[in-house]
Amino acid sequence: MKTQTWNYPNIGINATILWFTGMSGAGKTTIAKRLKERLANKHNVPAVIIDGDELRRGICSDLGFSMKDRMENVRRAAEIAKLFSHMGYVAIVTLISPLDQHRMAAREICTGMNFLEIFIHCPLETCEQRDVKGLYERARAGEINDFTGIQSPFEFPDKPNVIISTHQQTVEESCSLLIGHLATVKII
Amino acid sequence: MKTQTWNYPNIGINATILWFTGMSGAGKTTIAKRLKERLANKHNVPAVIIDGDELRRGICSDLGFSMKDRMENVRRAAEIAKLFSHMGYVAIVTLISPLDQHRMAAREICTGMNFLEIFIHCPLETCEQRDVKGLYERARAGEINDFTGIQSPFEFPDKPNVIISTHQQTVEESCSLLIGHLATVKII
Repeated sequence: MKTQTWNYPNIGINATILWFTGMSGAGKTTIAKRLKERLANKHNVPAVIIDGDELRRGICSDLGFSMKDRMENVRRAAEIAKLFSHMGYVAIVTLISPLDQHRMAAREICTGMNFLEIFIHCPLETCEQRDVKGLYERARAGEINDFTGIQSPFEFPDKPNVIISTHQQTVEESCSLLIGHLATVKII
Repeated sequence: MKTQTWNYPNIGINATILWFTGMSGAGKTTIAKRLKERLANKHNVPAVIIDGDELRRGICSDLGFSMKDRMENVRRAAEIAKLFSHMGYVAIVTLISPLDQHRMAAREICTGMNFLEIFIHCPLETCEQRDVKGLYERARAGEINDFTGIQSPFEFPDKPNVIISTHQQTVEESCSLLIGHLATVKII
């Protein structure tokens, strides 16, 4: 039997949600992963990534890509983010959430918490050139319908808290910008 | 800026789900809370409670109590349990999950993990006498339909991994029994 006591992460961080919105291939997950590492290693801040693709394989596997289902997807992601943030984690949600109403709905669910809308921006052409998952090719070939940026709209956020331009900034630069912002608004 | 490094809970515990099934008022949440404390304080094992009532107020607020909705409720709880167990937490799910098919569905979603079905047993009469939330009274008065044990069935688990009888065992005794079992099966 171990004698050390487990310390839960509730280390004085206000409940915080970092909502990463942006098109497929913009770099949401890549930046989230590195940000999580840097928050833990250099700032002693525990974070968790709530990844849209993972949710789609799990709790949202019953949902499609209609606007109704996308909204439900957003709602569930926001509720899960709340569960984690109540435990003391900074919850980083990486979800295309293409419409203003999606981001507004998420913000409303997370009322009373720090909710930062982070626009992970990258021009469609660059996302399409990267096409890490081969989804743009499939969408152009008509194998996927309702793909954001091709057949389905992505509304640029009106007033995101932070804009990251991944065609101009490296992953490290992007994380530095985000961490700087978190410090400025006194979250870390 | 803090210099200490945050340590994530991945401390060598195999992914473990403790699925508490039992009627309303049987004591699922009470035992879960105390078990979580004892696991953290005496065994250095981080746990998280995924509480059916809380889910109903949040991510499952779109669901009712039809058999279809109860199954969807179970599915989402199991998927959330998976998310937490992947992070190194023992996930304690407290959910009536009245039918065998509910527990089997949860077990299947959690394939590849330690999944222990814990039957928090208490005779209906005793649950009804306790009636902490006043729900039995409302069910008897016809204000609630589909209430488990009154209008809706509760199937006793066939082969639960552990049975706790809360009309005969104290909370501490119940937790000791559970912790003993976790040690026996080498989870802690």
